[in-house]
Amino acid sequence: MSDDVNRQVLLAERPKAKLEESHFTRRDVPIPEPGDGEALTRTLYISLDAANRAWMSPVATYTKPVEIGGVMDGFTLAEVVRSNDPSLAPGDIVECMNGWQDYGVAPARHLHKVSPIKPLSRWLSALGVTGKTAYFGLLDIGQPKEGETVLVSAAAGAVGSFVGQIAKLKGCRAVGIAGSDDKCRWLTDELGFDAAINYKTEDMTPALRAACPDGIDVYFDNVGGPILEAALFQTNQNGRIVCCGSVSQYDTATPDPGPRGVPGLLVVKRIKMQGFIVMDFYARRQQAESDLAAWIVDGKIKVREDIIEGLENAPAALIGLLAGENTGKRMVRVAPEP
Amino acid sequence: MSDDVNRQVLLAERPKAKLEESHFTRRDVPIPEPGDGEALTRTLYISLDAANRAWMSPVATYTKPVEIGGVMDGFTLAEVVRSNDPSLAPGDIVECMNGWQDYGVAPARHLHKVSPIKPLSRWLSALGVTGKTAYFGLLDIGQPKEGETVLVSAAAGAVGSFVGQIAKLKGCRAVGIAGSDDKCRWLTDELGFDAAINYKTEDMTPALRAACPDGIDVYFDNVGGPILEAALFQTNQNGRIVCCGSVSQYDTATPDPGPRGVPGLLVVKRIKMQGFIVMDFYARRQQAESDLAAWIVDGKIKVREDIIEGLENAPAALIGLLAGENTGKRMVRVAPEP
Repeated sequence: MSDDVNRQVLLAERPKAKLEESHFTRRDVPIPEPGDGEALTRTLYISLDAANRAWMSPVATYTKPVEIGGVMDGFTLAEVVRSNDPSLAPGDIVECMNGWQDYGVAPARHLHKVSPIKPLSRWLSALGVTGKTAYFGLLDIGQPKEGETVLVSAAAGAVGSFVGQIAKLKGCRAVGIAGSDDKCRWLTDELGFDAAINYKTEDMTPALRAACPDGIDVYFDNVGGPILEAALFQTNQNGRIVCCGSVSQYDTATPDPGPRGVPGLLVVKRIKMQGFIVMDFYARRQQAESDLAAWIVDGKIKVREDIIEGLENAPAALIGLLAGENTGKRMVRVAPEP
Repeated sequence: MSDDVNRQVLLAERPKAKLEESHFTRRDVPIPEPGDGEALTRTLYISLDAANRAWMSPVATYTKPVEIGGVMDGFTLAEVVRSNDPSLAPGDIVECMNGWQDYGVAPARHLHKVSPIKPLSRWLSALGVTGKTAYFGLLDIGQPKEGETVLVSAAAGAVGSFVGQIAKLKGCRAVGIAGSDDKCRWLTDELGFDAAINYKTEDMTPALRAACPDGIDVYFDNVGGPILEAALFQTNQNGRIVCCGSVSQYDTATPDPGPRGVPGLLVVKRIKMQGFIVMDFYARRQQAESDLAAWIVDGKIKVREDIIEGLENAPAALIGLLAGENTGKRMVRVAPEP
């Protein structure tokens, strides 16, 4: 990066099926000027999330679709460079939505100041959107009780690995679904999951029966599609399905139909399926951050980061994340931590 | 009926697709004797419910499948004839599960004594399973707020007609989906629904947009299938889908796949889909019965009964109900009210 240029990665073309590097383009523009009540921030890290792919479709999700020719959206951690608002000063570290560029300008109320922990990357891998998604999704929507079985898909991803570890902390049996034997070993041997299933090599229904001998009480679903359907059939009476994402359906021109068993199984087994977006819980973010920080300090939750160097590598890094390349939290380092 | 014979309608063969009269057979057996703690009851009315068809499939629902060669299951209202338990006396009226026969024997704890209102058929059409299903499903699972839009399918059925009327009582916009123009007119002109959609002649998505200009906040789903899918796409952020049944999927050899939009739309719109069974709420049955009775006495809820005469006509009556023949609560009169 250069100090007087703002490099941007733009959406060149909307992907109709699998995402490719050709869907992106780059441009260098002048560093923007903050207006009244705004601040200029320099991007340190870009969070890569499966949801990024959903934002690229023409249909609005919980956010507007990324515009063609516009800067690719993304959660970021950034440092305040210049501020025209009394609430922020140069050097402050903020969570924001700069997207895939070196610098961003935003109203101060959209910049959430965070404490300067070391390394700062923990704000993306543990305390930020990732950790809070796992925290509120599992505890508030899933409401696991001691002794229950919690199943999570994309379990070796950033959110999934937290969900299983928080489930263990709450006295539950934690079972993960992931896409390689290495990932499965990491879940059971390093993170303390009780069992893990490699969905690429195992037959889901018998594998779920073996891994969840008492059935599933809470299924934290990151993937949708056939895995959701298989889990639904093994869910217990009064089970809860936490709908966090459906990554199996994002990066394809041929999404699956909905899961069989909806609504029939929901009725007969009194199952609750509920979607959520972490931002809806931000009034209680302090509680989540302090619990998560304490669990990490105590060694009860292990954090793994998968840091890709350089803004220019963001497209390939997202494509790889959608293909299941990463273990732990994938992010792009845009500038060194101050 | 005769006084010394117990006529029974049995399941002769499990239907693989559409239910037909040939799936049933009849038998006359002696009137059974109650054992210790049991009572003998005489069936007055059999409730006909779409769920009856689901009970005939080989897969357990919330109850065991009806056995081949066994008495067809059904909710009943009955009069106690002889009792070997101090809690019941001859002449008492009880809700029970005699199924499709003149007489049943059951432990007293399975016989729920009800007050002898006139006509007794109101226990099936209004205060019993029907009314309580609408009451708890809408109010507890759906949690409608004043000014919200409540959509209900199978709206001219017993449960659906109550759901819409309770929604109006709570200050909501009530929209019904039914299968004929006559039913739709009954909903709007007699019951006070704000709008009604004939799903057999109207195109669901534009019809839903027109009938629910502010979107759907609560969808009380009795049918599943394509109507559920269409409603899901028109459901508002933080909407609730009450899963009560999926009659479109019961009486067919080729059930639809699950609804598209599950789980994707649940996530982005933070929708809750939840199934329930009315029996789970029976600890609070008194509250429901007293509210429902008061609303009916005040003329705020209108009740329509569709009484079929004679046990021998139960098979045809159920087949007709599955085809959408009835308006209001369909039941079979087995013996005259005492």
